[in-house]
Parts: sequence; structure tokens; C-alpha cells
Amino acid sequence: MPTRVLLVEDNPTDLELALLAFDRGGFANPVDVVRDGAEALEYLYREGRYADRGPHDEPRLVLLDVKLPLVDGPEVLRRIKKDPRTRHLPVVMLTTSTEDIDLRRCYEYGANSYIVKPVDMERFFRAVQDIGTYWLELNKTEAPA
Amino acid sequence: MPTRVLLVEDNPTDLELALLAFDRGGFANPVDVVRDGAEALEYLYREGRYADRGPHDEPRLVLLDVKLPLVDGPEVLRRIKKDPRTRHLPVVMLTTSTEDIDLRRCYEYGANSYIVKPVDMERFFRAVQDIGTYWLELNKTEAPA
Repeated sequence: MPTRVLLVEDNPTDLELALLAFDRGGFANPVDVVRDGAEALEYLYREGRYADRGPHDEPRLVLLDVKLPLVDGPEVLRRIKKDPRTRHLPVVMLTTSTEDIDLRRCYEYGANSYIVKPVDMERFFRAVQDIGTYWLELNKTEAPA
Repeated sequence: MPTRVLLVEDNPTDLELALLAFDRGGFANPVDVVRDGAEALEYLYREGRYADRGPHDEPRLVLLDVKLPLVDGPEVLRRIKKDPRTRHLPVVMLTTSTEDIDLRRCYEYGANSYIVKPVDMERFFRAVQDIGTYWLELNKTEAPA
């Protein structure tokens, strides 16, 4: 059963806070961090810098920021959900955007969930822990094909 | 913003426990109950017994049992995710099945989440509350078109 969490986040403050929340949440799941959408795709499809990623190191959850450098979040999401190798992966979109167009686009592309990051740091911290609890402990994920 | 929860469940014990969990969880969201897949579709598309359902009574979350009379859960899910009127709705599948075929089929059809009902009643009760907290308080849902 895959255990890893892929966290795609370019904002250093949000990244640090999310990692701290996972750490303090007591999850046993290792968290892999990438900082732009192109790197996320390389990671997922074992290309470029991730050509040597082990066959058993599958993520079981992707936390995907909407606004990302190089390839934006919704486009990464679209590719994940179009590709039979990855479409079973739960993808939770994280955003500071409250624009309905982003929300609609993400649900259209098959996002499992869409979370607006609370501006308050304490609430953001707790939101990440709630996301972890829900998707890593309660939700059942398909084993990769 | 839609507030209602549509609970599609034919097992009387699970139904009672789920309703109690929502009630005790202190959610302000009204819960509508239907007991088979055909009735769920009538509800969602305002047909038959639900032709008069008000235009503002949109659900914002569907809890959908997998094994259902008349039309089974995955088929209801498939129609929800195929139809532009309803595909934005978060659908959480609830099941006692641990068969991988059900899991795969539900993710293939676009389930947002897949929860295996804990056999222990206390744990099932808490799982329903966690589902409510996540999808009604944390997740942001698209307003209907």
C-alpha cells in the first residue's frame, strides 16, 4: 500500500507550515516536496530528476497548490486524472484563490477536493492536519495498477 | 450556497447511526434521506416523486452507499459525474465492501472519496462526523451552474 504524500507548493511559508503540521500530526507518511508543476510531473511519471525514483515509492495523496511556476496546478491535475497510471490518486487542491474560475476548472478536471487555505496560520496548520487525517486515515485509496 | 446533504442508504441500522452522527456533530446542514439508487436519481434530477423539489434545495454533499436496490451506487455515481448539472457535487462512497473491484470502479467513475464503513458502531459514528467536518466545513464546493 502506498504511503507517501506528494506536496506541491512554491510558497516557502505555506510549505514550512504544512510540513510542520504533518510532522506534529503524527502521521507515519513520508512527505515529498516539489516546488513547481513541471517538477511534480517529473516526480509522478519518473522523468528527468526523478527517473530513478523507486517503483514502490508511490504517493497515496497529492496536495497540489493552484498557482505554481512553470506548469500550473490545474494543468498538473488534468494530466494526473487523464493518465491511467495516476488517475486513482486523490488530489487535494490548495489555494489562496477565491476565484470561482479556478474552483470550477479544478472540479472539471477531476479534483477530489478543493481547500481554500485559511489566512490565519493556526487555522491553516489545523486544516493541513485535518486533510491528513481524512485522506490518510479515513479514505481508502486504490492500489496502483 | 447549497447546504443540504443527500444520504443514500438502504441499511436501516447504518442510516440511523449516520443520522445520529450528523445530529450530534452539530452540523447546521439538513440531511435528506433516500433508500435506493432510483430514488437518488429522481431526487437529483427532480423527477417522479421529486418533481416539485425547490430550485434552491441543492445538496452540497452526497453520501452514497455502494450496494443499493434498483440502481447500484456506482451507477448513480457515474450518472452524477457525467451530467454537467451535478458533476460538481462531492460524492463520498460508503461501503462495507472491501472488494477492490468496487473501489476501482468508483474511482474510475469519479468518486471524490471512498470510505469503508468501520464495523464497530462507535467508529462508524465518528467516521460520519469526520466526513461531515471535512466536506461541510473544510472543502469548498462549487455553486451549481
